[in-house]
Amino acid sequence: MRIFQILFILMSFAFSNLQSQTNQDSLFIRRIFDQALTDSRCYEVLEHLCTKIPARLSGSVGAAKAVDYMFQVLKEEKFDSTFLQEVMVPHWVRGSICKVNVNQKGVEPKSLVACALGGSVGGKANANVVEVQQFEELDKLGEAGIKGKIVFFSRPMEPRHIHTFEAYGGCVDQRWAGPSKAAKYGAVATLVRSVSLREDSYPHTGAMGYDSLYPKIPALAISTSDATWLSKNLKRNPQLRVALESDSRTLPDTLSHNVVTQMRGSISTKEFIITGGHLDAWDNGQGAHDDGAGCVQSMEALRILSKLGYIPKHNIRAVLFMNEENGLRGGKRYAELADSLKEKHIIAIESDRGGFSPRGFYIDSDEPSNISRIAKYRSLLEPYGLHDFKKGGGGSDISPLKKQGTLCLGFIPDSQRYFDLHHAASDTFDKINKRELELGAASIAAMIYLLDTYSE
Amino acid sequence: MRIFQILFILMSFAFSNLQSQTNQDSLFIRRIFDQALTDSRCYEVLEHLCTKIPARLSGSVGAAKAVDYMFQVLKEEKFDSTFLQEVMVPHWVRGSICKVNVNQKGVEPKSLVACALGGSVGGKANANVVEVQQFEELDKLGEAGIKGKIVFFSRPMEPRHIHTFEAYGGCVDQRWAGPSKAAKYGAVATLVRSVSLREDSYPHTGAMGYDSLYPKIPALAISTSDATWLSKNLKRNPQLRVALESDSRTLPDTLSHNVVTQMRGSISTKEFIITGGHLDAWDNGQGAHDDGAGCVQSMEALRILSKLGYIPKHNIRAVLFMNEENGLRGGKRYAELADSLKEKHIIAIESDRGGFSPRGFYIDSDEPSNISRIAKYRSLLEPYGLHDFKKGGGGSDISPLKKQGTLCLGFIPDSQRYFDLHHAASDTFDKINKRELELGAASIAAMIYLLDTYSE
Repeated sequence: MRIFQILFILMSFAFSNLQSQTNQDSLFIRRIFDQALTDSRCYEVLEHLCTKIPARLSGSVGAAKAVDYMFQVLKEEKFDSTFLQEVMVPHWVRGSICKVNVNQKGVEPKSLVACALGGSVGGKANANVVEVQQFEELDKLGEAGIKGKIVFFSRPMEPRHIHTFEAYGGCVDQRWAGPSKAAKYGAVATLVRSVSLREDSYPHTGAMGYDSLYPKIPALAISTSDATWLSKNLKRNPQLRVALESDSRTLPDTLSHNVVTQMRGSISTKEFIITGGHLDAWDNGQGAHDDGAGCVQSMEALRILSKLGYIPKHNIRAVLFMNEENGLRGGKRYAELADSLKEKHIIAIESDRGGFSPRGFYIDSDEPSNISRIAKYRSLLEPYGLHDFKKGGGGSDISPLKKQGTLCLGFIPDSQRYFDLHHAASDTFDKINKRELELGAASIAAMIYLLDTYSE
Repeated sequence: MRIFQILFILMSFAFSNLQSQTNQDSLFIRRIFDQALTDSRCYEVLEHLCTKIPARLSGSVGAAKAVDYMFQVLKEEKFDSTFLQEVMVPHWVRGSICKVNVNQKGVEPKSLVACALGGSVGGKANANVVEVQQFEELDKLGEAGIKGKIVFFSRPMEPRHIHTFEAYGGCVDQRWAGPSKAAKYGAVATLVRSVSLREDSYPHTGAMGYDSLYPKIPALAISTSDATWLSKNLKRNPQLRVALESDSRTLPDTLSHNVVTQMRGSISTKEFIITGGHLDAWDNGQGAHDDGAGCVQSMEALRILSKLGYIPKHNIRAVLFMNEENGLRGGKRYAELADSLKEKHIIAIESDRGGFSPRGFYIDSDEPSNISRIAKYRSLLEPYGLHDFKKGGGGSDISPLKKQGTLCLGFIPDSQRYFDLHHAASDTFDKINKRELELGAASIAAMIYLLDTYSE
């Protein structure tokens, strides 16, 4: 027998083994989706979480109840272990006063729909308004143009981005850093156009942070339609005055918890693959898409594998992080504990972009080999609508794990509707489609299966 | 110079031409999406159509008003010509009575939420109920088991299909053909489980057709949750009686219209590329996704190309068909006229699967070369979320054109939410996301641009 005949036979053998493994994977992934679409629990758990325990901001009664409830749900599922991780979290409260009024001779009185930004101090102001879209404009205006005034950041989200998270990225600096940038020149308060692509009457909250160099001034968001109104009326009447008041404040840090559940690995017992979402949610809504969806999908991903009798090689965890919205303390604490317990996390997946129809996964790596390693699963996942496998952010909660070399993945659902609801009172359970939620859970379970099977 | 050097230079030249054409296409498609996302009219037109002119069933006042309104909208856009095509359509009316009651000793009285199926005769029945999931069961039961009874078709949609239209295809025979299949064995009426994947309290209507061999009996749909209730209670109490009544009826055919608008071709003036949706909608809702969305996307696709100053090679039309829901007379009439006027339709695109996030296009052809011809545009369209280019149905309204050899394409949006709303009172404007609608219009415009540019 000639050498190339032997080689050919060996190659055929290897190829047929590869084929049969691929067929096996394909069949198992089909079973994952069947399980999710016929016998899932995520939708009913999310309904309870949203409608019975809305307003789960860190430090609140809602957050504590959500920890208890999800701990109970995960215990009922009888995974190998379910436990809490203690973590001290910030405790900001909105208070009960939030007024933004235009009340001036010659202008029809109007109340703007507003909400305090998370972390903002309370306070009062009654002053002229100066509108800016870029931070550079503040530098040009200087103290002469800003001192004693309310700065209004009005840069809208750029609608031309197809992926709306890119539009969010181009806007959110106004909300986060705007207040101190304005305080630097003597502003007395800031208003920001809600970071939403939809023109409507919901104010969207979200975290802001003060630069310790400058005075802390009240920072509020107004609805997109009121922001449009304000811009138009400032053009007509640059001397327009706004009176605002808020009594939001920060209380002492509070003890809270991450909720963790685990399927034990059968081979690599010191290595971990985790999937997670965050259990805290802003106090103005139900946190259905942000991020109740990610929590119940993480729970369901493990439930699917467990129901199918899957024995993982690595330890597999669902982690419900506390305090993603205004501090990331849960994510940091989780990574600290992982380091100190020498738990090597090889993969972390986060679902925190809403519970919409699945599109793919971001791979948080500059290493082309990491991208191609995940992208090679594309043909197995395309039948389920997953086409996007590309470089991108994994998720805030899992990002502290990157220090220990964890490869972080971010689940990508369809992004068109997310910012309509994000951080607003409209992020409610009725916006969730059961099948979309289930397909997301199945997508994550399928990715865990592939990574568990093929990671050394 | 050697021959292969010459060949190499020629090939490089050809390749660089190809490259530059691809770059040009890529840039123009980017402009199409920019236009759609920043300056579209489809959302506001759809809002008017849904909220001011709901219930646009063929023959109704709503349908006539919708024709007038959309004709006016298209005239305002100043395309090269806008005109109506006369078509006689069926005129079925629901009437004002629709009752399905369980009222029997030992069972708590219950009214089931129901609606007559389109085309059903009215009538009364008070009888035992026999539940079946497959037509074969009727043959087994025969007259002995069916005569004098109400047949209840309860086969649910199969949730394991990823594309929900496949689940619809596996169920809708009960609604369309069930009544006559049951009448064959002497049934006095039929009930059908609403063809929806969602368990809720909306009844979903839709067309049914009688087989002229058998008596016409009343045919009604009940909500999915009432269908589940009825199945459960029939198991407990097989002698359960249901009293039903409906006064739906068919009036004489009525004159109605297709609405057509056109951009004149600059080169192939006898050849046509059309995109369309249907203007009629069931009388119980606003017809937002089915198919107001398809109508305004067709209008917007031409508007985008026109706003960008695009001069088409072929004639390009948007066609708003009348009577897709219960007769297809508009689609048939359009094809007849095209034949008689010798208007060669090379391509027809239909958007009639909802206004959700775009996913791709079905190609209605058994010819692999037709599939690959369209699929080769994939790389240009993937940046916009369009990945699915595969064999599948084009659309009902354009299907009569297939006789003249037209290649029919069906726009594919995300399918998860469609059957929750389909033919129900819940198909309302608030379920439309502006960006998803606009991205669909841009997807269709991009496909028209590519086909117009590259079709000989």
